[in-house]
This record gives sequence, C-alpha cells and structure tokens, in this order.
Amino acid sequence: MNTELLTLVQAVQRLLLADNILLLCHKNPDGDTIGSAAALYHALRSLSKTVSIACNDPIPERYAYMQLPVYNREFEPGYIVAVDVAGLQLFGSATIAWAEKANLCIDHHATHSRYADGLVLDGHAAACAEIMYELLKEMDVEITPLMANCLYTGIATDTGCFKFANVTPKTHRIAAELMELGAEYTYLNELLFESKSRRQLAVEGKILQNMEYYYEGRCAITSLTLEEIETTGALSVDLESVTGIARAIEGVQVGITMRQQPSGSYKVSIRTSRAVDASVVATAFGGGGHHGAAGCELFGGLENAKQALLAEVERHLAPQESGEER
Amino acid sequence: MNTELLTLVQAVQRLLLADNILLLCHKNPDGDTIGSAAALYHALRSLSKTVSIACNDPIPERYAYMQLPVYNREFEPGYIVAVDVAGLQLFGSATIAWAEKANLCIDHHATHSRYADGLVLDGHAAACAEIMYELLKEMDVEITPLMANCLYTGIATDTGCFKFANVTPKTHRIAAELMELGAEYTYLNELLFESKSRRQLAVEGKILQNMEYYYEGRCAITSLTLEEIETTGALSVDLESVTGIARAIEGVQVGITMRQQPSGSYKVSIRTSRAVDASVVATAFGGGGHHGAAGCELFGGLENAKQALLAEVERHLAPQESGEER
Repeated sequence: MNTELLTLVQAVQRLLLADNILLLCHKNPDGDTIGSAAALYHALRSLSKTVSIACNDPIPERYAYMQLPVYNREFEPGYIVAVDVAGLQLFGSATIAWAEKANLCIDHHATHSRYADGLVLDGHAAACAEIMYELLKEMDVEITPLMANCLYTGIATDTGCFKFANVTPKTHRIAAELMELGAEYTYLNELLFESKSRRQLAVEGKILQNMEYYYEGRCAITSLTLEEIETTGALSVDLESVTGIARAIEGVQVGITMRQQPSGSYKVSIRTSRAVDASVVATAFGGGGHHGAAGCELFGGLENAKQALLAEVERHLAPQESGEER
Repeated sequence: MNTELLTLVQAVQRLLLADNILLLCHKNPDGDTIGSAAALYHALRSLSKTVSIACNDPIPERYAYMQLPVYNREFEPGYIVAVDVAGLQLFGSATIAWAEKANLCIDHHATHSRYADGLVLDGHAAACAEIMYELLKEMDVEITPLMANCLYTGIATDTGCFKFANVTPKTHRIAAELMELGAEYTYLNELLFESKSRRQLAVEGKILQNMEYYYEGRCAITSLTLEEIETTGALSVDLESVTGIARAIEGVQVGITMRQQPSGSYKVSIRTSRAVDASVVATAFGGGGHHGAAGCELFGGLENAKQALLAEVERHLAPQESGEER
C-alpha cells in the first residue's frame, strides 16, 4: 500500500468532496477515538453529508452525551475514514473489512502502519482530538459546544486530564479554546475522572489490603486471588485500572500486581520507576514489555510465584539512598 | 483597616521600592501559597533584594525543589507581603505578629478579609500563582525554569491538575507559557499527583473496606475508628484526602465519611452531588458548610451516629431514577 501523507488542507479537500462517509474507531474504544470521530461526525453532518460511525465494540454508556449514531448499513460507504487507529490489527472482526478499504486515516500514533490511501499524522499530538480540532478549523465549520465536548473528551482522556508526559503547550492552548467554544469541562472532568464504580472501589480495597512491602519499601507487591476477584464482581477493565497503584507509592521503584487467572496461574503486571527496567524482570519469566511497564505469567501457587518474583526484583533494585530515581 | 485595592502595576512599583522583604504563607501550607511565595522570592532575589519566607508550619519535604529559605530573623522586615492568605486567622501563632503589619496581600480568595495596607485580588484566578505569574511579567524579571516550576506547582495543586471547576481558559494558557519557560511538568505531575504515601494508602484501604451503601446506592457511608486511624499511622492530612472517595462512587448522591476523634465523638464530612444540599444535612446536627461539602460532629457511638445521619439523609435524597443529578 502506497500511503500518501496529507496536510490538513488536503484532507479537508477530500472530505468536502466525499459523501456517504463511514468513520471507524478502534476496538475497545476510548475517549479519544470516540471523541475525535464524534466531532468529525457532527461537523460533516453540519455540512449535510450522509455519515455514520462504526466500531467493533459498543460505545461505553458514559459517552452518551456525544450523541453518536451506530452504523446500521443504512448507506453504502463511499468514503471510509479511520480515526485514531494505528494499525489494522486494532479494528476487530466487525470493522476490519471496511478498514482494509480505508481512504483516509487521521492519527497521532508515531507507530502508525500506513494502511490507508491517505494519512494525516502528527506523532507529537497528545491526542487525535488535537489534530481533529485543527482539521475542523480548517474545514471552516462552526465548532458547536457539542463538538467541543467531544474534542475536550479526547484530549482529557488521552492525557489523564493534562497529567501525562504527552501534554504539550499546544494541548493546553487547545483546551482553552475548546472551553471558550462551550466545552462543559466541569461536567466532563467529573464524569471522566471523579467517578468510580462500586466494583472498581471494591477491587482497589482488596489491592490495598493485600499490599506488602519488601527491600526497605523499594518493592511493593499485591495480589488478587480468583475468589477475591469473584467477590468484588470485578470486570477485566476494573482489574486493568489497579495495576498502577503499587508503583505510585512513595519510595517504591518496582510495583507488582498479581491476578489469578481461571486456569489458576497468575498474570503479573510490573510497573517501575526510571531506576529499574520492568521488561528485564518480565523477560526472566518469559514475558516482556517496556522499561516502565511489563508483564508475565507465573504458575505454581501464589507464595511460590511471589518469592520467585521478589528474588528477581532484588537483582535489579537501585540502592536505597537514591531518592532521585525519577 | 483601610485596605487599598492595587493594580499589578501599583503592586510592582511598591515591591521595587521595598527591601528586607518578608513573604508570609498561610499555615498548613499547600502548593499554591508556597509556590506563589517561592516564585516571588526568586524574582526579588534576582533583583538583589534581601528577602525571605516565613510560615507557621514546616514546608513539606516534597516541595524541596523550590529551594525555599526559612526566615531566621537575619534581617528586620521592612516590607511584609502575604501570599494566598484570605484572612488573619489563617496565619498561625508563629507569623501572626508580622501578618498584622502586612503591607501587601496578593490573593485569589473572593472572601479575602482585607487586613493589609494594599491588596492585589483576583477572585476569578484558579490559583494565586496565576496572579503571581502576571505580577512577575509586569516586574519584567526573567522568569527562570525554577520560578516556572514554583508557579506551575501552585496552579496544578490548586486545580487538581486542571480538573476542578475553578479552571479557566486563562489557567490553561498560563500553564502553556510556564511549560515553554521550562516548567518540568512531567516530573511535577508525577511528584504531585501520582505519588501516595504508604499511610495514605493504608487509610484509603480502611475507608474502602468500611464502605456501606444505602437507599439503592444513593448514599455511601464509611468510617474510621480511632483504633483504625492509629493502626494506619495516618496524619490529619491523610484523613482529609479521603473525604471525597464516598461521593465519587457512581450513583452516589451523598457520600459520608466519619472519623472518630480522640474525645470519642465522630467528625462527619458530607459530600454531595448537585441533587442534595450537604449544608442542610450538616445543619440538622449543628454543623454547616456549602452545597457540595459540609461537616458536623456527632456524639454517642458509631452505630447511633450512623443511623441518625442516614435518617436525615433519606429526607433529602433525589428519586432513584435521576441519573441527571449533575
């Protein structure tokens, strides 16, 4: 596939010529893929285009305010746009056939695999919604409060509400402009960041209750047995959100979260500060990952697994004196 | 006291004429009072002024990067500036004598009680650091990365990292400029928002363990006995930070946190969604507060206190169907 890199102006030209437009989100959709697609959807609708959105998975209930349609084959796609999707493997079976015929991608992943005819890519954008905001301005549509809400959602969710390292000065400036365009940021921030389910809290409670500290507090390790997971009624999304807790404790260089699987084995999430390479620890057990976040699977009982992990961790810990590991 | 309202230009004129300047923070200092004072300290030092900072309580360890001095009476104060202090009652015994002679206040609390000769007040600023940033620009000093770190800290801590309702477009624009001036926002965000002490986590664990739900999940109530507080080794700052947990649960309109006092009574924090007025509930027990956050004190045992609170809460709950309470 020969993918053409497009400027915003070129992408807008193509969109203005198109109709019967199908927008595609990535599977397990998050606030950025949905918010960016939703903003483009409402902008194209304001130009009287026929347009809809397709995703492999249902749009989470909390994003209902975006007033998204669900594509029901009510028109034959004439132009297909993938939003915030770095590669074909991220679509899922329900949308992959359309994705393979994508005319345009709008994305902010530097690793984007260039699977469509045209591509607008900005690997420095904190969220795809940043690019979409500039595209909408280029399109010269009126950015309504609804569109501003969608774009603000994309930016806020992809940056942990302006907390992550991907935030740039431009991110803040776009947020300011979206607020002035009517984004209901107080409502959105509360909805997106202040609200937790009872299940999530029950899981967090167990995680905290089972937290143990080793090596003068430089390693924190916690676990959830299958029985504990079942007691809380936790879903896999609830379990994913707790893997950062152990690492975020003061003085902890290595935070480990162990979750028992239905087979009895333990899925292990390793999160580290700069001082320790998580992928080295995970690789010792046949797993892998990145410097700050890696994973592996261990068999043979909780205590055995824990001792094996702790022994490996000890080999990689930085000296206790270092308070400068970040 | 006849307090004169000053423009930034007037305040800068007075500061430029002054020397032997003592900056005052409020007691139990937070990131905004410290960060704003620290930025002004470094700016005045860059103009070769003699200047120091006094606070009733020690500056928390985590703010060490601000390179703050501690006033040790090495000079006689010639000009006294209170930073982010809304009233005399917020100074504490160690600094009140100076505060009563304050020449200038720089503050963002609309409720400021006007106790000094001159006052720069902007009740719409999310943080005092926003005002201080503009004052430093007016002063025409070079805003160094160190000053930018101090100001960013004030803004980020007073807004929950750009999450609270006090954020304005201007807040985001100032953040963007501080990042361009060298604020190490990635380091600061991690330090200020991603890091919790073992004590804090232990308290959160107890709070979650003791969480109970009533009235179809519209009320969540949790408690800490003196014994539980002592087990965790929690300080009062750790206890303050958990009062929002109950209210932030999905579907909860009233979140109540009860903390036993050394006298045996229970200090009660009530947090509510828009649908319920927390101050009405608190007032029924002789307490008070605001619509969304109020408090009171109850005597006579945990279960009795809980039942009394629940009975009062029931009278004010919105119907269960309402998912729109925000």
